[in-house]
Amino acid sequence: MQVALVTVGDELLAGDTVNTNAAWLGERLGERGVAVGRTVVVPDDVDAIREEVSRLSERYDAVLVTGGVGPTHDDVTMDGVAAAFDRQVGEHEGALAYFDRHDTYAAEDLTEGTTHLPEDARLLENPAGVAPGAVVENVYVLPGVPDEMKGMFETVAEEFAGEGTHVEEVVVDAPESSLIDAVAELRAEFDVTVGSYPGEEVRVKIQHPDAETARAAADWFEERVQER
Amino acid sequence: MQVALVTVGDELLAGDTVNTNAAWLGERLGERGVAVGRTVVVPDDVDAIREEVSRLSERYDAVLVTGGVGPTHDDVTMDGVAAAFDRQVGEHEGALAYFDRHDTYAAEDLTEGTTHLPEDARLLENPAGVAPGAVVENVYVLPGVPDEMKGMFETVAEEFAGEGTHVEEVVVDAPESSLIDAVAELRAEFDVTVGSYPGEEVRVKIQHPDAETARAAADWFEERVQER
Repeated sequence: MQVALVTVGDELLAGDTVNTNAAWLGERLGERGVAVGRTVVVPDDVDAIREEVSRLSERYDAVLVTGGVGPTHDDVTMDGVAAAFDRQVGEHEGALAYFDRHDTYAAEDLTEGTTHLPEDARLLENPAGVAPGAVVENVYVLPGVPDEMKGMFETVAEEFAGEGTHVEEVVVDAPESSLIDAVAELRAEFDVTVGSYPGEEVRVKIQHPDAETARAAADWFEERVQER
Repeated sequence: MQVALVTVGDELLAGDTVNTNAAWLGERLGERGVAVGRTVVVPDDVDAIREEVSRLSERYDAVLVTGGVGPTHDDVTMDGVAAAFDRQVGEHEGALAYFDRHDTYAAEDLTEGTTHLPEDARLLENPAGVAPGAVVENVYVLPGVPDEMKGMFETVAEEFAGEGTHVEEVVVDAPESSLIDAVAELRAEFDVTVGSYPGEEVRVKIQHPDAETARAAADWFEERVQER
């Protein structure tokens, strides 16, 4: 299973906000064996959201959209997602029923628009806030406020499951360029996916669907590097 | 002037690294009056890089690509950018000359591939590291290591300039949904761009090319909100 993320918000493009939502989702999906193939950041603009959601929902098993959910004037994500599937946005019976069941909010006290969702959408409850999310075809729409996004993702997490992948990490105190031969041998020897991430030290991440192979490859690499 | 960012790296998609490079570039470009219209995160994969660079370079005035620059096996950004313009990657005379001029590195001590750039690329010097960057048509290729990316961006910053935009910020201690009417009136009254960002308090960002208009709109909004 491979998914794409669409994170919505002018503030992300302007650099006022760092995209921690994308990182959190990438990590959480990775734990479930699901890879993120692409992340796209779009402005609060119906056409931009429509275009990217349309493009990515055809190519990936699922698309997770975060941000721009709610009743304020720059919350246009539901409109963009609906447009990607030629649907209208309107009063949603399920959303009205959801607020009826809710202790804290009565539908008549809500800001207009809070109960508006794409037609025939599946409603996603918001365990940490007010505005509900939605699922339209293979597109999941979550809020942008991190706590709300995380809480809502957990309500659908089980719908995301891929082949497990096992990750081993080896930390090496040497320049990344000095590891080139060792990494090439590692990949030839074990058919593993290898990433190397320079910093104060170099972190080498070794992945394989089979835990024993990943572990054996990491042990081999650690020895190989110590030889130098 | 409007640009797109392409940030390359499996570690970004997996959430191992938060995309602070995109935020830094968004902020720095914004200071120069240049808007980021789209940010795309792609894996360390030649085809993915080629596809997104090709798509975005046609639609935006410039594309800034970060990450995957250097001689290790997962550094394939130069190949992807070259492929987007049907060019080859090979030994670059300018890169050889650059290392000849450099005090610290002699070309023969470099890892193979360090001096390989897309043909006819303009070389960008790396003030904080080894691997050079490149400009191909309207695409700027910078390293992913933040200090190297920042240092290299500054060498080309003057090539990015847009109409100035002035930003004023008003912080309001009230729920975002209570500001809807005031924001609508503000936009009707002053033709400004308005973004609202909820947190402990709500930050309302008001933008206009003219500084006086932005300031007047912010003053008006502050008074309007205090009336409640």
